[in-house]
Amino acid sequence: MNPHIQTVPLEKAYRLLNHGPTVLVSSHFEGVDNVMAAAWACALDFAPPKLTVVLDKAVKTRELIENSGRFVVQVPTVALLDLTNEVGSRSLAQHHDKLAGAGVSLLRLAGDALPFVDGCSAWLECRLIPEPHNQASYDLFIGEVVAAWADDRVFRDGHWHFESADPSWRSIHHVAGGHFYAIGEPMTARGAPQD
Amino acid sequence: MNPHIQTVPLEKAYRLLNHGPTVLVSSHFEGVDNVMAAAWACALDFAPPKLTVVLDKAVKTRELIENSGRFVVQVPTVALLDLTNEVGSRSLAQHHDKLAGAGVSLLRLAGDALPFVDGCSAWLECRLIPEPHNQASYDLFIGEVVAAWADDRVFRDGHWHFESADPSWRSIHHVAGGHFYAIGEPMTARGAPQD
Repeated sequence: MNPHIQTVPLEKAYRLLNHGPTVLVSSHFEGVDNVMAAAWACALDFAPPKLTVVLDKAVKTRELIENSGRFVVQVPTVALLDLTNEVGSRSLAQHHDKLAGAGVSLLRLAGDALPFVDGCSAWLECRLIPEPHNQASYDLFIGEVVAAWADDRVFRDGHWHFESADPSWRSIHHVAGGHFYAIGEPMTARGAPQD
Repeated sequence: MNPHIQTVPLEKAYRLLNHGPTVLVSSHFEGVDNVMAAAWACALDFAPPKLTVVLDKAVKTRELIENSGRFVVQVPTVALLDLTNEVGSRSLAQHHDKLAGAGVSLLRLAGDALPFVDGCSAWLECRLIPEPHNQASYDLFIGEVVAAWADDRVFRDGHWHFESADPSWRSIHHVAGGHFYAIGEPMTARGAPQD
């Protein structure tokens, strides 16, 4: 395994999503891998860490997650801008070579078939908490984060280091139609601890 | 009213939150105004626009929203960094002068008692969609966006203009403990329309 990929303690896992990056959602069921992009993913709890993600009824990923009960939420980087937009624009249902076409390379960080996208800055392995009413009425899925990893070139010791990492590691934040903003400079509020 | 504050068509309202900014949540019930900060707010649907926000059982805002059925989600700026951190660190339950102490100035954009925070870049007026199970089990609240406004110095014609606006208008993205990142430079993915 890439030695830069380090585990993140579960109590710090919320920090991987707290600044609101657009994420990739990956999943696997019966030999089929998929990856989609999602701007509508959000932390939900600290301990155990949970998150929400919106999965439209049309997306193949939804079916894989409903069947397997597992998924990964991961944080793509400026280097993965085109890949992120591409997996967010095409469905595996129509494009069977979607992942190869978008240049997606998969890791198996959990030691089984669950796919993780290579080159991301952080990964949260999730177990689906079934909530049929939310899923049916709002396309809203809740996951419990059971393990987390980050690349220590941009996240280490519980902190993002966007300001000192290569700019290609910055998170990307989708607005609409393939238009994103990269994350910018750090700012500390008055009275914040120096940790 | 400030002539820079313009209505945003409801079908574009999701764009105000899509890039994952930390937000302020304001509310009112029976003469009491409150404002809190929330990093865990997220778009949920396009039409009608909906959003989710996590409100801990300890926060006074939760009680105001449960009683009034209404709230505002708004996007603070770099100029409001300290204010945002301060309203996110103190509870109205213990600090009765919380809003004045943090320098919060309120607007009444909806023409009634619902409070909106002056100086924000965008405001989404929400009607609570009661979901008792989500609220009790996950502290998760769902709102339907019934009106939206933005300051045309940084959001106009359905687009953010962080790159040409004064840097003090940038959105802020909380990581932990008063440490934020401002939003950074725009990036357009390959093949994205030029709109």
